[in-house]
Amino acid sequence: MARPAPLSGFPERLPGERIVEEHITATVRRVFSLHGYAGIETRAVEPLDRLVAKGETSKEVYLLRRLHADETDTTDDRTLGLHFDLTVPLARYVVENAARLQFPFKRFQIQKAWRGERPQEGRYREFLQADIDVVGADELPFHYEVEAVLVAAHALNALTGDGLPAVRIGVNNRKVSQGFYEGVGVTDVEGTLRTIDKLDKIGDDGVRAMLTDQIGLTRSQAEAALELARISGSGAEVEARVRNLGVSHPLLEEGLGQLRALVDAAEAEVPGVVTADLRIARGLDYYTGTVYETVLVGHEDLGSICSGGRYDSLATDGRRTYPGVGLSIGVSRLTSRVLSAGLMHATRSVPAAVLVAVTDEDERARSNADAAGLRARGIPAEVAPSAAKFGKQIRYADRRGIPFVWFPAGTQRERAEVKDIRSGEQVAADAAAWTPPADDLWPRVLPGPAPA
Amino acid sequence: MARPAPLSGFPERLPGERIVEEHITATVRRVFSLHGYAGIETRAVEPLDRLVAKGETSKEVYLLRRLHADETDTTDDRTLGLHFDLTVPLARYVVENAARLQFPFKRFQIQKAWRGERPQEGRYREFLQADIDVVGADELPFHYEVEAVLVAAHALNALTGDGLPAVRIGVNNRKVSQGFYEGVGVTDVEGTLRTIDKLDKIGDDGVRAMLTDQIGLTRSQAEAALELARISGSGAEVEARVRNLGVSHPLLEEGLGQLRALVDAAEAEVPGVVTADLRIARGLDYYTGTVYETVLVGHEDLGSICSGGRYDSLATDGRRTYPGVGLSIGVSRLTSRVLSAGLMHATRSVPAAVLVAVTDEDERARSNADAAGLRARGIPAEVAPSAAKFGKQIRYADRRGIPFVWFPAGTQRERAEVKDIRSGEQVAADAAAWTPPADDLWPRVLPGPAPA
Repeated sequence: MARPAPLSGFPERLPGERIVEEHITATVRRVFSLHGYAGIETRAVEPLDRLVAKGETSKEVYLLRRLHADETDTTDDRTLGLHFDLTVPLARYVVENAARLQFPFKRFQIQKAWRGERPQEGRYREFLQADIDVVGADELPFHYEVEAVLVAAHALNALTGDGLPAVRIGVNNRKVSQGFYEGVGVTDVEGTLRTIDKLDKIGDDGVRAMLTDQIGLTRSQAEAALELARISGSGAEVEARVRNLGVSHPLLEEGLGQLRALVDAAEAEVPGVVTADLRIARGLDYYTGTVYETVLVGHEDLGSICSGGRYDSLATDGRRTYPGVGLSIGVSRLTSRVLSAGLMHATRSVPAAVLVAVTDEDERARSNADAAGLRARGIPAEVAPSAAKFGKQIRYADRRGIPFVWFPAGTQRERAEVKDIRSGEQVAADAAAWTPPADDLWPRVLPGPAPA
Repeated sequence: MARPAPLSGFPERLPGERIVEEHITATVRRVFSLHGYAGIETRAVEPLDRLVAKGETSKEVYLLRRLHADETDTTDDRTLGLHFDLTVPLARYVVENAARLQFPFKRFQIQKAWRGERPQEGRYREFLQADIDVVGADELPFHYEVEAVLVAAHALNALTGDGLPAVRIGVNNRKVSQGFYEGVGVTDVEGTLRTIDKLDKIGDDGVRAMLTDQIGLTRSQAEAALELARISGSGAEVEARVRNLGVSHPLLEEGLGQLRALVDAAEAEVPGVVTADLRIARGLDYYTGTVYETVLVGHEDLGSICSGGRYDSLATDGRRTYPGVGLSIGVSRLTSRVLSAGLMHATRSVPAAVLVAVTDEDERARSNADAAGLRARGIPAEVAPSAAKFGKQIRYADRRGIPFVWFPAGTQRERAEVKDIRSGEQVAADAAAWTPPADDLWPRVLPGPAPA
């Protein structure tokens, strides 16, 4: 086998890096679970007709075909493709299992998704997502739009002690934008939203020109839309500044009330994390209420690491409609930056806290017995690969970051001993009683880059 | 959306079922980690040329193509396919990262794999595997063939208290079969092994006829091979019965020594689990030492739930050769049987131990605050969807199996109270101090079917 090169867009981790990624997923899983969200997994594939229903993303779908297919290889609606997010599978899962689920259905899902797009930093062809959603049957109260962002904020905040920079979650509400646009007489609301979404790319002048030339807004309507997009801040600030623009519309009122309630509740529970930002327009053409975007402070170039929003109709089965709200954390994007920027590291690359040395191959059973004694009490232990000189066995532990080397009783010593290879301290110990310090028991994830 | 039907061969779980599957993976992950195996994940795809290198399985590969590919859709070696096991990706990962890994490299990997084959019970198109392997650089001592099966046995044994039936792991050793065959003058060892592997399907007479007519064995050589395949039992029994056949060959001696050492060590550490079974020939044409197969006692019809073996050359990069040994637990196969046979169930379908009731929508903030107080102490809690009558809120908890309903202080009561909805007992409680019984804190997995 020639040495293979990594496949661009398909990130993989070395064992120590994987500990960091696993720590991130375990932390968000725990926070999701503490909030009562049930973990599910869906299959990796969906029929093509479901994948392309969302429109825009369809060009990025990976389709499957069998290497030796029985029939001619044609693409039709029943062709299977890999899911490109976890929302399309959720919608299908809910409709398929509606009779066996309890609503509102609160679930999290931590799985890979695939997109056949050109890879670049922060954009992958295979990536791990951690999603939470609440799905109602026919109705879904607004308070879940508050809850969902709080759960996501708690999940990300739980990682800041381990080296993750602070996060800033920006929120907007479709009702604010739509109500405001309709209040100034704009008819093509979705076209306006899609154009405002281009502000980062083409700037004020570009957006103004597009709004007037392509979407059909008057000059003053375009100015008003741009004015609205400049507003951000606390709930009270945003409410006051929007009112200052002097536009009145029932939908705008409703949206402003929701936006302020959400930002105020978030400020009380997770201060400094959530702000209103009326520039956020991504997805407002299909979301129907709150929309969320998240940046990592100091790493804004990475783009959003946690996005989502509310759909009034996530799915429907003809009989019932299923509204939903949720957010998706980009775990691969987050992990890749955390690793490349040296924001977190694992204290070692293997689980074992103890390497049990082997004095002589004929005495391996003694080493195995001591290792079993440690494991029976929850202490991860591995046995040395060979009865090499102890210096070599200690180097084996050192290279992996294993803090303790255990020397079993046998022909060379009457009682077992354990050495802390960092301090060199070596003491008599009993495999049925000795315990390492709690900090050494399992690999931990600490802030900053791995020590050289 | 019309109600979708499940896709045959792509198993999915309801939330309560997923708790059982997650319990199985968490248990084996913990045992693997306690033994010092590092968890990694590999990408879902490999280039076609690597997937077909293993030969036989190539017909089952799912290939990927982009829905709107830039170029004409041709299949060549660089076409990507979904991995059909976790061994091919491991071999590639080891060679790709050899300079950054420590050898022997002990890793576990719990991931899905895909095969485009016809689905039937116990055979899926998408399935979850839990693999452990040890990979050496240039050498891998025999004792890892013992360790690997002990780790797998401990992992499966750890589940028997939760309702998994006992497992029986059968082992054979390529060196025993090959040494024996060569000792009686057989030249086509691999052909003989592949034929012996058909015993379950075509029986003694069929195998005898194939061995003489197709593989070129004499009548007495075929009888000897069948005689060998009838031997099973403890290490000492098997050694004695093979010696009784009067065949002598250095490779047979080596293999018998290894087989006995392995079975004896296993009997000492996990009594009653591992037996030698010389009928096992699956994979002996590519494995080079020990080979493993596992049945669930009482569910032998399911086939092997944990198989593997030793390869002298798992991979090579031209400079070095990487021998490996490992086993793969079929988690999907195991979980599907555990669920369909009612062998295990989860105590509830959601994580929350407590439903915090809402007295009035205006007082939702009080409910949120009490829920936050519980979660801050690690107690999973969710807040009721609406301020319905308490009877309805209690039914919400009951339908999900949530054992406690919490009534916050507010206009209706001065102090918070908590009700155990199973006993009906309701007591005053403080969200900063009250703790549920440990057994109720998280959903647990218990033996037997879910209560009706």
